[in-house]
Amino acid sequence: MKLHGYFRSSASYRVRIALNLKGLAAEHLSHHLRKGEQRDPAYLTLNPQGLVPTLIDDAGHALTQSLAIIGRLDETHPEPALLPSDALQRAHVRAFALAIACDIHPVQNSKVLARLRELGHTEDDVTAWAAWITREGLAACEILIADRPGPFCFGAAPTLADICLVPQLANARRFGVRVEDLPRLLAAETAARSLKAFADAAPERQIDAE
Amino acid sequence: MKLHGYFRSSASYRVRIALNLKGLAAEHLSHHLRKGEQRDPAYLTLNPQGLVPTLIDDAGHALTQSLAIIGRLDETHPEPALLPSDALQRAHVRAFALAIACDIHPVQNSKVLARLRELGHTEDDVTAWAAWITREGLAACEILIADRPGPFCFGAAPTLADICLVPQLANARRFGVRVEDLPRLLAAETAARSLKAFADAAPERQIDAE
Repeated sequence: MKLHGYFRSSASYRVRIALNLKGLAAEHLSHHLRKGEQRDPAYLTLNPQGLVPTLIDDAGHALTQSLAIIGRLDETHPEPALLPSDALQRAHVRAFALAIACDIHPVQNSKVLARLRELGHTEDDVTAWAAWITREGLAACEILIADRPGPFCFGAAPTLADICLVPQLANARRFGVRVEDLPRLLAAETAARSLKAFADAAPERQIDAE
Repeated sequence: MKLHGYFRSSASYRVRIALNLKGLAAEHLSHHLRKGEQRDPAYLTLNPQGLVPTLIDDAGHALTQSLAIIGRLDETHPEPALLPSDALQRAHVRAFALAIACDIHPVQNSKVLARLRELGHTEDDVTAWAAWITREGLAACEILIADRPGPFCFGAAPTLADICLVPQLANARRFGVRVEDLPRLLAAETAARSLKAFADAAPERQIDAE
């Protein structure tokens, strides 16, 4: 398999974690987002949105959207499962993941921040914007799992929720967001980052890290 | 069941379509977004993100995030299926749905547009922002399904892809986005809107429509 991604892309980071948890190897191909390499015409034939990641699977199919890619990996390689076997719990895990993947990440991604710069906003404004949506979203995520058993977001094993949380917390720190008062999220992050699958997927461990 | 929503919320619209396709009835409870009713403390106990929709299921569980709610409905009420039986097709349908639910809708939702107003942008700027992300996202969606058989986004039956597409096209028109040159999307929309399940879910048919 080949994973088109970028070390700092949190959607790519999610897929790297899932591949590692499944024990799957992939060749990593880097697209430098600030240089616009994801808009290269050849890449757009694989991913018409011009976003990373794209996973080229063993059969050569191009799969896009990190949560769809992870869903596919979970179907083709069921162990370890990334969603709970209980149907109601599964809905809660998906809702938590979507609270990050829909309502935080796309509002602070590089395309939106670039647009704010084009509209005349300063670098301080842009960082404040990213910090605002990240802080508000993570504060809601804290409530979503506050009363659930740990150490991971949803119990004794990592799920899609942790796969989305860890990269978003990395972004939060990059934007200077206060996270110390989100103890449940931090506890889940600590549990997750102690696993080799998460540690090896970290941005600073990637071949294209700057 | 009870659906907390808002007539113009496209995420609520998605869930209304899914309920109708499944032949499921729900009491509709309206939260006026521009008046901030989704931030009411009682509602926040159901949905800590302060977003609509929230579905209260038959057992009284509060389910959040439209795609997680629809996934749950598809598990509890499998017919008609909202995802294809073929695993690869399923990944493509999910990717299309996420291209809308992650990369278009949250960047043009009422919270983000309100933030732009707070930053001093005019109503014209705000509409241009919503139109920009919507146009760019839908143009990519057109490519994603251009060569796939119709009449729906992914073949002979409506799927999660159509459930996400139809509300986003409604938003596009509200923002004055050009869509005439997206023939594959428009063909899928026509097929979908000819179904009673989609027609009955339209914003203008809801009890809280203004």
